[in-house]
Amino acid sequence: MHAKKLMEKITIKTNKTREVMDITKEINALLERKSAKDGLCHLFLSHTTAAITTVHMDPALDVDLLGAYEVMIPSRGEAGHTHHAAHMPAHILASMIGSSLAIPVQGEKLALGDFQRVVLVELNGPRERTVIVTFNS
Amino acid sequence: MHAKKLMEKITIKTNKTREVMDITKEINALLERKSAKDGLCHLFLSHTTAAITTVHMDPALDVDLLGAYEVMIPSRGEAGHTHHAAHMPAHILASMIGSSLAIPVQGEKLALGDFQRVVLVELNGPRERTVIVTFNS
Amino acid sequence: MHAKKLMEKITIKTNKTREVMDITKEINALLERKSAKDGLCHLFLSHTTAAITTVHMDPALDVDLLGAYEVMIPSRGEAGHTHHAAHMPAHILASMIGSSLAIPVQGEKLALGDFQRVVLVELNGPRERTVIVTFNS
Repeated sequence: MHAKKLMEKITIKTNKTREVMDITKEINALLERKSAKDGLCHLFLSHTTAAITTVHMDPALDVDLLGAYEVMIPSRGEAGHTHHAAHMPAHILASMIGSSLAIPVQGEKLALGDFQRVVLVELNGPRERTVIVTFNS
Repeated sequence: MHAKKLMEKITIKTNKTREVMDITKEINALLERKSAKDGLCHLFLSHTTAAITTVHMDPALDVDLLGAYEVMIPSRGEAGHTHHAAHMPAHILASMIGSSLAIPVQGEKLALGDFQRVVLVELNGPRERTVIVTFNS
Repeated sequence: MHAKKLMEKITIKTNKTREVMDITKEINALLERKSAKDGLCHLFLSHTTAAITTVHMDPALDVDLLGAYEVMIPSRGEAGHTHHAAHMPAHILASMIGSSLAIPVQGEKLALGDFQRVVLVELNGPRERTVIVTFNS
């Protein structure tokens, strides 16, 4: 068995202040382009006001997800934050949801469940976001 | 040093709608069966209404943990979700708790803390859940 | 390419009951000392009342972050926890924030964003905490 290693950056352009963006297609396209067959794919988001996770995706779910975040940590930042209030809720949510995620790869594709997608959660956009993709077979 | 690689699926049968299930024994049994000595073990849950994490386990803790989730994201889905209300709270919690987890392995065992256990958090059971276990030495 | 592997424990001494401690310098010092150039660095916290994540760090942010945790899961444990009430909120928060985190390494340094730092979130200190650092190139 010949081990394959890969470290690549991909750039994702978000369009709104808050947005749940499905980036599964971009990751799978990179794996296919690099012939990354079977192994483990790690995704790292090098930002503090966005996060990365897996979630069930369908038309209305992104709205409900952003609504739930808003209930948990109100974006108005009224809880008496001493840091720059406009960014604080994004920092808190990002640190809870996370910046690091690994997913097995089988046949040049992420081995996700049926409705499971990799999403970038934008909390302070629109911006260009960088995802560092590491693959090891 | 001879590198060892492993990718295996294990199936976990949950018993209730919501449940915190300790799966440490199942993972350690696999590592031992495959002589996976020292390295990193990655666990991926390919589902959107369940999650995987580490937590202190003792008799009453699962009840308290599920109670805390209920307070954070009520399972009745009354917050005006536009998606299928019955599943939405499970999707939100699963995306917060996470589907991906890696743990160092020492001597064919997960190098967990004293009371630290790997748990599958079932949020929409009972079901059969698949965990993809990847090991690299 | 010659693959480099590393598994080391580092000990972090926390100073308060709750505290957000930047441990980026300690991780980078280890990577440099071991000449761990390019690859993936995994951090595992083998404890159940502390967590590890990435977050924007500046003087006031730790206070706001701990304040947000307190709002989400009150540390007084008044929600009728049946487990030892004093520890329960720490266990819940730790299982949500997480114990496992991987970050790409470039040039013997964690490839973090501009203000992004690796933090140990102490929820039941002061204590000595162990982080298991695994590196694979």
